[in-house]
Formats: sequence, C-alpha cells, structure tokens
Amino acid sequence: VIHAGAGEYSARIRGRETDWCDALRRALARAQAVLERGGEALDAAQAAVAFMEDEADMFNAGRGSALCSDGSVEMSAALMRGSDRAAGAVAGIRHSRHPCAVARAVLESEQVLLIGARADEAGALAGVEQCESSYFVTDDALERLGEREQALGHATVGAVCLDAHGVLAAATSTGGISGQPPGRVGDTPIIGAGTWADRAAAVSCTGKGEAFVRSGAGRQVAALVGTGVELERAAEQALADVAAVKGDGGLIAVDISGKITMPFSTEVMPRGIWRPGRDPEVAIGARDAWSPDVPL
Amino acid sequence: VIHAGAGEYSARIRGRETDWCDALRRALARAQAVLERGGEALDAAQAAVAFMEDEADMFNAGRGSALCSDGSVEMSAALMRGSDRAAGAVAGIRHSRHPCAVARAVLESEQVLLIGARADEAGALAGVEQCESSYFVTDDALERLGEREQALGHATVGAVCLDAHGVLAAATSTGGISGQPPGRVGDTPIIGAGTWADRAAAVSCTGKGEAFVRSGAGRQVAALVGTGVELERAAEQALADVAAVKGDGGLIAVDISGKITMPFSTEVMPRGIWRPGRDPEVAIGARDAWSPDVPL
Repeated sequence: VIHAGAGEYSARIRGRETDWCDALRRALARAQAVLERGGEALDAAQAAVAFMEDEADMFNAGRGSALCSDGSVEMSAALMRGSDRAAGAVAGIRHSRHPCAVARAVLESEQVLLIGARADEAGALAGVEQCESSYFVTDDALERLGEREQALGHATVGAVCLDAHGVLAAATSTGGISGQPPGRVGDTPIIGAGTWADRAAAVSCTGKGEAFVRSGAGRQVAALVGTGVELERAAEQALADVAAVKGDGGLIAVDISGKITMPFSTEVMPRGIWRPGRDPEVAIGARDAWSPDVPL
Repeated sequence: VIHAGAGEYSARIRGRETDWCDALRRALARAQAVLERGGEALDAAQAAVAFMEDEADMFNAGRGSALCSDGSVEMSAALMRGSDRAAGAVAGIRHSRHPCAVARAVLESEQVLLIGARADEAGALAGVEQCESSYFVTDDALERLGEREQALGHATVGAVCLDAHGVLAAATSTGGISGQPPGRVGDTPIIGAGTWADRAAAVSCTGKGEAFVRSGAGRQVAALVGTGVELERAAEQALADVAAVKGDGGLIAVDISGKITMPFSTEVMPRGIWRPGRDPEVAIGARDAWSPDVPL
C-alpha cells in the first residue's frame, strides 16, 4: 500500500491525474516485483519509496523535494520492520539520492536515528549514491517555494506492506514542507509518529508533521489494533487525535490480517494497493469513493 | 519527579552517594521554587533539568555531557506539556548551554523538532547562552570516552511534573552515549519515546535509547494509563516492551491523579520527588527499597 502525500487538489494534480496514477502504478510494480520473487515486506516498501524518491515531477521526496526557506534541500526518511521492530531513520539528508536507503543502512546498524552530514556519510559508506545539491532542486520545487504563502500540499511518500511470511513493514520519505526553516524535522523520521510497524500493524503518515508527532499517530494506530480495535476505527481515532492538535493529513495502514485502511482529512491523497493476483489499484481524491475491496 | 539516568552502580556514584543526593535535592529545589510561586509544570520541569545541565560532575547533559567517538559533544533535549500536547525538541546541539531552553523555544514556535546548527541558532535567537565546545567537555567525560569499551551508565536527566492547575509536563536532556558516532540521536528528543506528556500522564525515559524508540515507551505508558491501566503497571509493561527489543533503562512518570512511578531495570537510577509540604526525597539504587509513599 503506498501514498504520495495528503494535501490540496492543486494545479500539480488537477488535469494530470493520469500521470499521477501511472506513477503510482509504477511504484507499486517495484514492490510487486520484490514480493513476487518471495522478497520481504521491508524490501518491498523500500523499493516503492525509492521509485517515488526518483520521480521528481510529482513526489516530495528525494529529487523534487520541497525546498527550505533558503532554497536548500533537507530530506528525512524512516523504515521499520514489524516482526522485530528493527527501525532506521535519517533527518537532514542533503546528498543521498535515496534517503530511504540510508535509513535502511541505519536500520541494519546499532543506531536508530542519524542526522545531518553524518547520515549522508553513513549512506555513502553503505553505497548509497551521493549527488550534488543541484540534483535534488527542480524548477517545480523552486516555483512552489516562491508561492509558499499559499497552503500547499505535503507530498511526502510512504509504503506499508504485509509479506507472505506474515511480516509487516513501513517506509516513509519526505523533503518536508516548502519554505520550512532549515533544520526543521517533521514526523517522517520520528519512529512512532510518521512511521511505525510492529506485529499488529504497519503505518505511514503524511500531513502536518508537527501534529502527527504531538499525537504519536503511527504508534497509536498499531497500539489500538494490538488491543483488538478494528484497523479502520484505529486509524480514524488517530486522525481525530491529529485534528485535536490542529493538524490535517492522512495515513496508510495494513494490519497482520491483511486489512487495509487509507483515511485522510485533506482534499486528496494519491494512493495505491497491490495484492497478489490483482491489478494495482490507485486513486487520488476522496471523490473516487474507493473502497479497497472494490477495484477501480 | 526527577531522574539522572539509569545505569551501573559505577565508580562515578559509588562512595559519592551523598554528593549525588545533594545535587538531586538542589535540582528538586529549583522546581519547587517555580511551583511554590504558582508556576507551571513545564517551567518547573525545565528548571530542574536546567540545573542538572549545569552540574558537570555527575549528569550527562549540558556541560559534562558524554562525548562522541571523535571527542565532540552533541546534545539532545525535549519538553512536552500535557494539557495541549505542545512539544519542542532539539538534537545535535553543540553550543547552547541549556539544550532544554532551546527545546522550550522550539515548543513556543510552529516547529516541534529542530536539528544541528540551526537548533543552536534558534537557541541564540531566543536568548539561550552560547558557549565554546570546550565549555561542555570535562576531564571526567574524556576519561569515560577512553574507557568506552566498558558498559557505562547513561546519565541522561529528566523531570516530570503535575502542577496545581492539573497540568502535566515532561522534560529530558542528554549528551547521548559515550563513544557514540557523531550524528547518532537516541530517544530523548523523540516525542513519544524518551519524552511524552498528555492529559493522562507525563513520562521521561533513560537507558538504551534505541530500544526506547523502537518501543515508543513514553507514549505507551500514557496510552495505557489513558485506557485505565494503573500507572505502575503501565510503566512496567513499557519497560518489558523495551526489554523485548534488548534494551535496559528506566523511566519516571506521574499521572493526572498525582501517582508516581520510577521503575528501572539497571543497577541504579538516581531519582527524586518533591511534593508540597514535604521535604525532597531522593534515592539512587534499588537497594534503597524506596517507595514514594515512604519518605526516606
């Protein structure tokens, strides 16, 4: 299950729905390829996110990230595997082409969170391609920075997955909010807020990051599911809790039984599902009235 | 309620118990002064932590922080107010005398987490005293770095408070783990892990930070209390969850009814309580067999 950020039905999407749906399907295909060869949930989630990090035109992660107020790029990412709660996160990444791959290197290490230049260095050591700052900065991101007085969408990307071994995983990657002060970090790399996976559920969030941190949204969904609350209700309660601290956004979640939910309080949240034996299903707005059990 | 880290009964404490207890009492006195003039829980918790940040001989926060493997100091801190879940956190602080004061400035801003040099800059703008790196590096910390092959205690400091207005707050500050790679961040500034406060409970954690992040320990204690679980049981369950991901440590917590718990799985956790009309109560090891309801 993937998302590409909860936000407004803006000019970046309007009239380009087909392109967005195509890109979502291609991201799902990356995860599908991993899973169909018997791969693990964590690898599948990372593969989908890595694709979206490369896709500069639409997604706010990796190349094409939102820019800080000074025009710089600072990226965050996190991964978590539910079976053993192994987690890796990075913040303040400036040179690694795939922040989610750096988060993966952190997950494989003794650490859980690495920040700043040392995170890029760890990425380089782990073989993650390093790029000049200019690689990440797109014309579209510069344009958005100029318009930052408008409430723009937060096109963070994320993926959650349940694999054939019954293991859950979550991955999230973001460039933050257009015009944010350098040094600002949102919910994406905060394990328990923007990203969480345990034996009950895997969750990836998007939206007003500060509100998701103050709610501990990801952890809350899984904790409720762990105590027997139905996934959809747990996710709704978490979003209500985010709204209580004046935040909007959305999340995707999958539980250990394979139930899926993808609620959002914004106009749109581009999203998609792939399940064995079915074509990928994708949607953008609430008006698509999309139920996971009704293929588009 | 304050703590000064969960760890071993090491030479840093053994034979110096009186000094430690004195320092804990003085930290409590700072919070008491705030509360006795009708001040708020957040100010009281911050005052106790600020005292411990200055106290270089014992506490691993501010001056006297543990050193990174390259001999540098990188500090983290977080504050959270339960009534509105306002939160502020910083990581990778290198120059601000009081990292908790920078976290306070973040709490008062639109952000929740600021990292690196920009966090120090925000601190400077908010009037937090800036110091040369050498101010933070003590002989004792250099000695500990040399001995880092030994399992050393993690003397993170923290405070939780319930004020006369019925508002809960939590504060935590740390220099991390002696010999940690630069850029590594533990649980202290992760809202929901090392630091959390809501309307049910306020929690500050200490120990193997990565395990507390992978458990979402702080949020878990309060979430359980919010669903009616007794505070002591909630804290025990959170520490069991930390142990399940191979972590040890401790936490302090207070709930909205004023109940207190201070469990730890290590040899010692210097800690203390001040309550109106009583003398401050302090303890160091489990052997003190200290129940909060039995003044020392």
